[in-house]
Amino acid sequence: MKIDISKGILAHNDALAEENRLLFKQYGVFVVDLMASPGAGKTSTILATIAALRDRYRIAVIEGDIASRVDAERISAHGIPAVQINTGGACHLESAMIRRAVEALDLDEVDLLIIENVGNLVCPTDFDLGEHAKVMILSVPEGDDKPLKYPGIFAISEAVILNKCDTMSVFDFDRDAFDAVVKGLNPAAPIFPISATKGEGIDAWTEWLTARIEAMRSAG
Amino acid sequence: MKIDISKGILAHNDALAEENRLLFKQYGVFVVDLMASPGAGKTSTILATIAALRDRYRIAVIEGDIASRVDAERISAHGIPAVQINTGGACHLESAMIRRAVEALDLDEVDLLIIENVGNLVCPTDFDLGEHAKVMILSVPEGDDKPLKYPGIFAISEAVILNKCDTMSVFDFDRDAFDAVVKGLNPAAPIFPISATKGEGIDAWTEWLTARIEAMRSAG
Repeated sequence: MKIDISKGILAHNDALAEENRLLFKQYGVFVVDLMASPGAGKTSTILATIAALRDRYRIAVIEGDIASRVDAERISAHGIPAVQINTGGACHLESAMIRRAVEALDLDEVDLLIIENVGNLVCPTDFDLGEHAKVMILSVPEGDDKPLKYPGIFAISEAVILNKCDTMSVFDFDRDAFDAVVKGLNPAAPIFPISATKGEGIDAWTEWLTARIEAMRSAG
Repeated sequence: MKIDISKGILAHNDALAEENRLLFKQYGVFVVDLMASPGAGKTSTILATIAALRDRYRIAVIEGDIASRVDAERISAHGIPAVQINTGGACHLESAMIRRAVEALDLDEVDLLIIENVGNLVCPTDFDLGEHAKVMILSVPEGDDKPLKYPGIFAISEAVILNKCDTMSVFDFDRDAFDAVVKGLNPAAPIFPISATKGEGIDAWTEWLTARIEAMRSAG
């Protein structure tokens, strides 16, 4: 019974996601959906990504949160268009929310749209937003056992960013064990160790993202 | 339409939660539901709580996770009965899951049942499990802005544990700002700063929990 209900919601979401995808294609906008736990450093990673790519691409950001506008304000302070979505309780973004948020942006002026999903390692994995890539961030303080406990998000992500790597020595984080489980769940996904606030490791991550953007453009 | 569906699920959950509550009352078991983000230190806090209270109370643990048995195995290694629930994707525990898990425990031999909810700051807030108290853990690395972004869980918790306080100097955590927002959301909830792995601050937290347990017993 409950499964049937979920299927109905997901089918509706997927249909609108397909419309989003066509819209993004029409405007030539590459869309990446960043997923992570609360406090893993999504907004800091977005700010570091903006700093690295803003001379090359015109960037806009959609910020998803249960409540508050603090993240959109942090982004806007850097002169980047940012739309805040408050889900009012929902633990993930849905394609209909993205569609409404996109109406507040001038897509003609956007090359790269970064979506910050609600802080959550579970719910966002099920919802197609019409994005080109889902990417997840895990932060070192969360622990190296997270791929065992939340396999779905690791399996669905096209890249895994490991943030707060400068605190690896503070926490008992076993990088080899982490990498082995992630590779088992998702052999194709690269793992990018970074420190978003210190700017470390951002080059490798943004080079991967640039390659994905250029591949989309070449494909037309 | 979606709201109606949610209401139906929640009403069903609440009815079973009431049955759980009667069962716990019948056996005189105090039940606490621990909620937190992935990696905030739920299992470590449970282990520290067990160490502090095991001479006074007979303790059992229900571990909720999307997948894996690693947490239940960590608890069982200390000689404490532990039941693992794998939700297989669901982002929270529901009262029906607790009811099934409880059948694997001998409630006659339990004074304190600790439930570790799925790592998530959103979904568990809506689901009554029949517990006596919901308590949340935030860890310092997640950041002091989390009450602004996830107000619901702070508002519903009867106590807030602030874990990994030994890393306060590593992260830019503004304790005064954090406390002010939490107090605004939930004036009655005490905030317990702890380091679960180092055993710091556990006394104040377990004294509060003991007072709650004894209050239940006095009330019969």
